[in-house]
Amino acid sequence: MTPREHLPTSIATVCLSGTLPDKLEAAAAAGFEGVEIFENDLLTFDGTPAEVRRMCEELGLAITIFQPFRDFEAMPEPQRARNLDRAERKFDIMLALGTELILVCSNTQPATLDDPARAAADLREMADRAARRGLRVCYEALAWGRHVNRWRQAWDIVQRAGHPALGLCLDSFHTLSLGDDLAGLAEQVPAEKLFFLQLADAPRLSMDVLSWSRHHRLFPGQGELPVAPFLAEVLRAGYAGPLSLEIFNDEFRAAPSRRIARDARRSLTWLRDQMGGGVLPALPRLSGLEFVEFALDHAARAELGAMLSTLGFRRAGTHRSKDVELWRNGGANLVLNAEPDSAAAERFEQLGPAVCAMAIRVDDPARLVARAQALQYPVWRERTGAGERAIPAIRAPDGTLIYLVEDPALGARPIWEDDFHLSPAALEPGHFLGLDHAAQAVAPGMMDSFVLFYRALFGLVPETLWELPDPYGLVRSRAFVAPDGSLRLPLNVSESTRTGTGRFVSSLAGAGVHHLALATGDAAAVVDQAAARQAPLLDIPENYYEDLGARFGVTDAELSALRQRHLLYDRDPQGGVFRHAYTTAFRDGVFLEIAERSGGYAGFGAANAPARMAAQRRGARAVPPEIG
Amino acid sequence: MTPREHLPTSIATVCLSGTLPDKLEAAAAAGFEGVEIFENDLLTFDGTPAEVRRMCEELGLAITIFQPFRDFEAMPEPQRARNLDRAERKFDIMLALGTELILVCSNTQPATLDDPARAAADLREMADRAARRGLRVCYEALAWGRHVNRWRQAWDIVQRAGHPALGLCLDSFHTLSLGDDLAGLAEQVPAEKLFFLQLADAPRLSMDVLSWSRHHRLFPGQGELPVAPFLAEVLRAGYAGPLSLEIFNDEFRAAPSRRIARDARRSLTWLRDQMGGGVLPALPRLSGLEFVEFALDHAARAELGAMLSTLGFRRAGTHRSKDVELWRNGGANLVLNAEPDSAAAERFEQLGPAVCAMAIRVDDPARLVARAQALQYPVWRERTGAGERAIPAIRAPDGTLIYLVEDPALGARPIWEDDFHLSPAALEPGHFLGLDHAAQAVAPGMMDSFVLFYRALFGLVPETLWELPDPYGLVRSRAFVAPDGSLRLPLNVSESTRTGTGRFVSSLAGAGVHHLALATGDAAAVVDQAAARQAPLLDIPENYYEDLGARFGVTDAELSALRQRHLLYDRDPQGGVFRHAYTTAFRDGVFLEIAERSGGYAGFGAANAPARMAAQRRGARAVPPEIG
Repeated sequence: MTPREHLPTSIATVCLSGTLPDKLEAAAAAGFEGVEIFENDLLTFDGTPAEVRRMCEELGLAITIFQPFRDFEAMPEPQRARNLDRAERKFDIMLALGTELILVCSNTQPATLDDPARAAADLREMADRAARRGLRVCYEALAWGRHVNRWRQAWDIVQRAGHPALGLCLDSFHTLSLGDDLAGLAEQVPAEKLFFLQLADAPRLSMDVLSWSRHHRLFPGQGELPVAPFLAEVLRAGYAGPLSLEIFNDEFRAAPSRRIARDARRSLTWLRDQMGGGVLPALPRLSGLEFVEFALDHAARAELGAMLSTLGFRRAGTHRSKDVELWRNGGANLVLNAEPDSAAAERFEQLGPAVCAMAIRVDDPARLVARAQALQYPVWRERTGAGERAIPAIRAPDGTLIYLVEDPALGARPIWEDDFHLSPAALEPGHFLGLDHAAQAVAPGMMDSFVLFYRALFGLVPETLWELPDPYGLVRSRAFVAPDGSLRLPLNVSESTRTGTGRFVSSLAGAGVHHLALATGDAAAVVDQAAARQAPLLDIPENYYEDLGARFGVTDAELSALRQRHLLYDRDPQGGVFRHAYTTAFRDGVFLEIAERSGGYAGFGAANAPARMAAQRRGARAVPPEIG
Repeated sequence: MTPREHLPTSIATVCLSGTLPDKLEAAAAAGFEGVEIFENDLLTFDGTPAEVRRMCEELGLAITIFQPFRDFEAMPEPQRARNLDRAERKFDIMLALGTELILVCSNTQPATLDDPARAAADLREMADRAARRGLRVCYEALAWGRHVNRWRQAWDIVQRAGHPALGLCLDSFHTLSLGDDLAGLAEQVPAEKLFFLQLADAPRLSMDVLSWSRHHRLFPGQGELPVAPFLAEVLRAGYAGPLSLEIFNDEFRAAPSRRIARDARRSLTWLRDQMGGGVLPALPRLSGLEFVEFALDHAARAELGAMLSTLGFRRAGTHRSKDVELWRNGGANLVLNAEPDSAAAERFEQLGPAVCAMAIRVDDPARLVARAQALQYPVWRERTGAGERAIPAIRAPDGTLIYLVEDPALGARPIWEDDFHLSPAALEPGHFLGLDHAAQAVAPGMMDSFVLFYRALFGLVPETLWELPDPYGLVRSRAFVAPDGSLRLPLNVSESTRTGTGRFVSSLAGAGVHHLALATGDAAAVVDQAAARQAPLLDIPENYYEDLGARFGVTDAELSALRQRHLLYDRDPQGGVFRHAYTTAFRDGVFLEIAERSGGYAGFGAANAPARMAAQRRGARAVPPEIG
């Protein structure tokens, strides 16, 4: 075992919602070994520090630190003396809590002196008083400290003070948010002076660092800061204390503490794994979506089947033991599940007709299941009939089941052959190459849970964030893709409950697949056939094509070909082209997309989203387009 | 009439939610004379530009400009030629729309050349082509333009181009967000070169100017930018075009377009008034809250009356013709309304027991009513019995009625004498000086409507924004106060629906008074009496007092006096002191505060909000405190 695997995990109570007992119970339930007691959580708690100590003991939680002690050092008298008195009162509380470490963050007051020698003298005095009571002090540079905002300054002061009960606290956010790094830490700071470590990630935002820190911190892996290299440097310097999370995040404060604590604990498992040494089973090799499954009753299945038929799908098989149908066109498989007493039936009860599962092709389902278990993600196995394959699944944060199947292209026996009676239609050629992407609509407070799920468990990589104007509010969209592009899962979120995304999320309990794109090599041909079968395709207004001509200089012939099929068009700077069309929504829920990529186009036609979203508000066209 | 009163009002369609017809109808209904057609709204519209023209004509709306034309000037070939072709296609659309002006905003592309002469030549060419078709072009410096981001640079380029069909567009946000001003405009730019003016306000945020502009713009008067002095400079320079609003705001995009359009129109009325010349009747002189009125049924009234009795209130009168009671202690008046078929009864039907109205003392109610009418705020008159006073009222954005009464302290006859049978209790002395403040909980999307209501109509001034940590999420609080401190109305908003504020807002349809503070000169005495009467006072934990001692160095005697009464304490840097205590919530809704200000303390004890909010989650204390 490497030393890093010994380092205990810890979380600051400020990360979690609720009362102090709620927070402690959630931290313990998620498997944390320690907590930072954030002072405000103690002040508002209706019980003594000794009771907090007892609660923590019963829950098996160490109190790793008491924090923060603010605006202490380098103050003029009489504030200096008052601050030392204040420290003594906090020492009383620490002794009652049974924690021996207090965090002093660098002074933000206008009155504080720009005098490192004086700061060192004050901290030395505080450390001396602490030591007399068996306590220790660590000093942290806040990114917005008045005079001290870099860890090197804090270290200079700690070094000057030269007291054994005074050490350094490092915080990844305070260092990385300023674009700073830990160069020199291992060389200059003795390991025994590294008293404490706080870990936080964040999105890269251009805003003042105080607001950024107070509202937008994230758990490691949810954001964009290089937290893993930061931790690697701290470990290289010989740090041997807890790995502790301190996250201020408006959504986490408002979310159920159990879910957030669980994500927090997962983020540390992921981070330890990033250090190497195989904490987690290796990431899967992904190769696309094998199927998407809908939960339906018989009436909804008949209706969806009719709609799918207009797109060229055929019923290709029925399940051997369950009321489940396979619909297929070429490489695109859709499972229509109406089995009572199943996970799908439960989902149908709650949500009506909706996507209940998708199946991802992976190199080794068992290894990915083990990885999910190590990350505390719930694993699920549906009951199976005799001779049927048990397909393992993981439950996504919104309840969708993610089945894991071996890739038939790599020689695995297709699940269909074991579990389904396939009809001759199963082997007929089709115009769809497969499932291009499945876009999920996610409630605002659930986004970061999903980010961790996709990144930590599957190794998907977040792409650019798009802001898409729906007629009734903004929709933010970010795709998570496999590094080799073999799997694409966009996540859409909307603060507005009036957008298409917002209404979908409100109508379902949380989220789910909102649209499903079918890959084709010839969108025009697919649309022509679909239109001939009266498919409910979405009308795109004439003005869109006028602008397209102006923007891209598309030839009149091509423009006319797009226009008459209501095909949308995008082109990337490298010349990759995307042609796509949409159906209207099935029962005001999921809709389908016909998607043709060429020339290496890797996006999702985000520039066309406004036209699509406005058209969706108007609904389906009355008559099929004229085919020229 | 001054010239500014002739300038027509206009609004960009991007400010409003919905489809293009929704937007146009909302703008017309709010009284706008023109609209800027935001191109995206046209592209997603399923009808021809000529149809848009007809809709606008029918609604009496001029199309003041077509916008934006992006990334045009100073591009290398062949992009330069393509951009000119693109312009020609947009000219076609403008002719169909029937608008003669197009807005070109400064180029943001990495490929654009840093060459003002070339930019001028390109714009000259575009203007020349426009002129041949009877059109004009105006050029605007985007705050994040690649090379051109100041109006003076844009003017330099327009001047170099020297074409009569090319002029300048000014935008208050692009100038003020960079800390720039209009110094030199009137002296250097001929009035006929000022083609267009866009007005936008914003909160002062420290973030990148592009995100700030795209998500956080506000209507004039809702934010913190000096939009009025900006407009004054533009008018001094002789600008004679429309006053047009261009606001990108995530909440406005998601809100009902009628309300937002109305606020937009109000903001321009207010802004014109700021120019002087008496567009609006003068601001009122305010002098506090005369009463707060609860809508109740008989059971709830009996229960609230019992609670009020424990605080020393007595039933002091009954209404002459309605089922309405006056409860009073000293200078604090509460009206308990159980009259069927009244505005109060309607509110009770919708919301249960809640505050339905408050009465503000003003110097001239009729003048304020006229001001409200000029700002399109709805005015209300309750039916009155014979000999009773008709008290005018204005409906706040959340439906609360704001009664306007003359100040009895200024010699006006108190309304109670006309409308109520007063009992001898009405004249008994009491320990409350009056109503200190009424705090309203507001749904997130409603905050800016309230800001405009308080600022534009009443002349209240926004104070510092506080972020208060409730155990289940953040609450943002901002007080609106009369310049002389005679009226204090805090507004609280929470994105989380799990906070006290969030739950209150969800349970009521939108908002309302959530807590009411009663002013006293001796909070300790009031609490002692209330506790003796078993008032449902809120427990504050011991840990709060430990910290108070450490923070303020309060004497042990004072600390003990506070602690045994569960009084909260705050002190401002000038030594002003606030002592306050809270009741538990009445039927999970409104709660009361006992508030003692001394030494000029002007705040609301925000530092104590976490302790209060956590205590509210625990509920009332079981037994009254021991009185020493």
